[in-house]
Amino acid sequence: MSISMRIARIRPAEVRLAEENAAFLRAMGIVTIHLQASPGAGKTSLIQRTAESLSGRLRLAVIQGTLSNQSGVTHVHAVDLPVVQVNTGEQPYLDASMVREALEQLPLADVDLILIEEIGTLTLPTEQVLGATLRVAMASLPEGEDCPVHYPGPFARADAIVLNKTDLMAHLGFDQSVFHQAVRRVNGNAPIFELSCRSGEGIEPWSAWLLEQARDRQL
Amino acid sequence: MSISMRIARIRPAEVRLAEENAAFLRAMGIVTIHLQASPGAGKTSLIQRTAESLSGRLRLAVIQGTLSNQSGVTHVHAVDLPVVQVNTGEQPYLDASMVREALEQLPLADVDLILIEEIGTLTLPTEQVLGATLRVAMASLPEGEDCPVHYPGPFARADAIVLNKTDLMAHLGFDQSVFHQAVRRVNGNAPIFELSCRSGEGIEPWSAWLLEQARDRQL
Repeated sequence: MSISMRIARIRPAEVRLAEENAAFLRAMGIVTIHLQASPGAGKTSLIQRTAESLSGRLRLAVIQGTLSNQSGVTHVHAVDLPVVQVNTGEQPYLDASMVREALEQLPLADVDLILIEEIGTLTLPTEQVLGATLRVAMASLPEGEDCPVHYPGPFARADAIVLNKTDLMAHLGFDQSVFHQAVRRVNGNAPIFELSCRSGEGIEPWSAWLLEQARDRQL
Repeated sequence: MSISMRIARIRPAEVRLAEENAAFLRAMGIVTIHLQASPGAGKTSLIQRTAESLSGRLRLAVIQGTLSNQSGVTHVHAVDLPVVQVNTGEQPYLDASMVREALEQLPLADVDLILIEEIGTLTLPTEQVLGATLRVAMASLPEGEDCPVHYPGPFARADAIVLNKTDLMAHLGFDQSVFHQAVRRVNGNAPIFELSCRSGEGIEPWSAWLLEQARDRQL
């Protein structure tokens, strides 16, 4: 079975475009985070909490992938920061050219950190490249302790891992140590941030990590 | 931007294979359900509950897509029914040829209903066809009331929709009527089954619907 023929392969032109994105952003001193998670894991909530937490410390912007072209869809709005929504149409993931077009719509001279919210899925093509500085994979408690083993790709490639919805711990009988073991089976080093976008608990260490990433790269 | 060039298009040969699967299963009097949901929505739990509920009424089998080739991954095992696991490798979804190979490993003369558990995602290629009789899309409460609007594809194409984890209703402040409205924006007719695989509540109407589908097609 020629599976490899059936996967959307990244064209060389796309890789060049991603490299150009990366070089351009590096020159601007802007750190970009490519955030990947399942639908409902809390990507938008994390962005809102992060923006609140980093307000006055880092200037944020958001590029947000969406499949929906319906009106009334709720998105990042509770915080005052530049957001470019990208409707990816039939293609269920962002690509480097979409990110480039979105960057052109942002006030980049006034931005330190861009959070790129991927379409919600843990099963992106493995070679997908946008030119982002860092990759973050997020899971949430209802997805189960062994989610990183069932869907290893995003967790294996991540520079940091977020576990959201810790406020549901008592109701779900979730064992954090099992989740940590599952992460370590696919990723030996990435820091793991446990937090609740609902309560705000655990947001500060995550924000501090982002701040550190931005400062390391701007000096 | 030539997005259409970048999506894994279903080859004509694949469509023919799906049609052959469908014709073969129809001739055998076997109903197949293609179950799609996010990671952690509860696909495997739903299969376990369904098998328990239909025990003695329908003879079930399971084809289960998985990305993981690691040992120790937990899957359907609590119930005594034939299960074929299909590791899809780099391709993050099942296809008709994988289903055909799986069918050849099942004791089809003793099977009435096959549940096909797709790799966990709501963002499959739109044209994906396996040859299954019916499609079912499942969401769970933590994914939010507007999940069907954000990820319309699977819900728009579904013959039935399952909302799992109703046991978390009180903790999440989830409004079922908003979920129903979201479903109806993309799918006018499919029945919606609200249930909890954890408590077992709501499993019986869902099982009864499956039984009805199987009987309608076997007579």
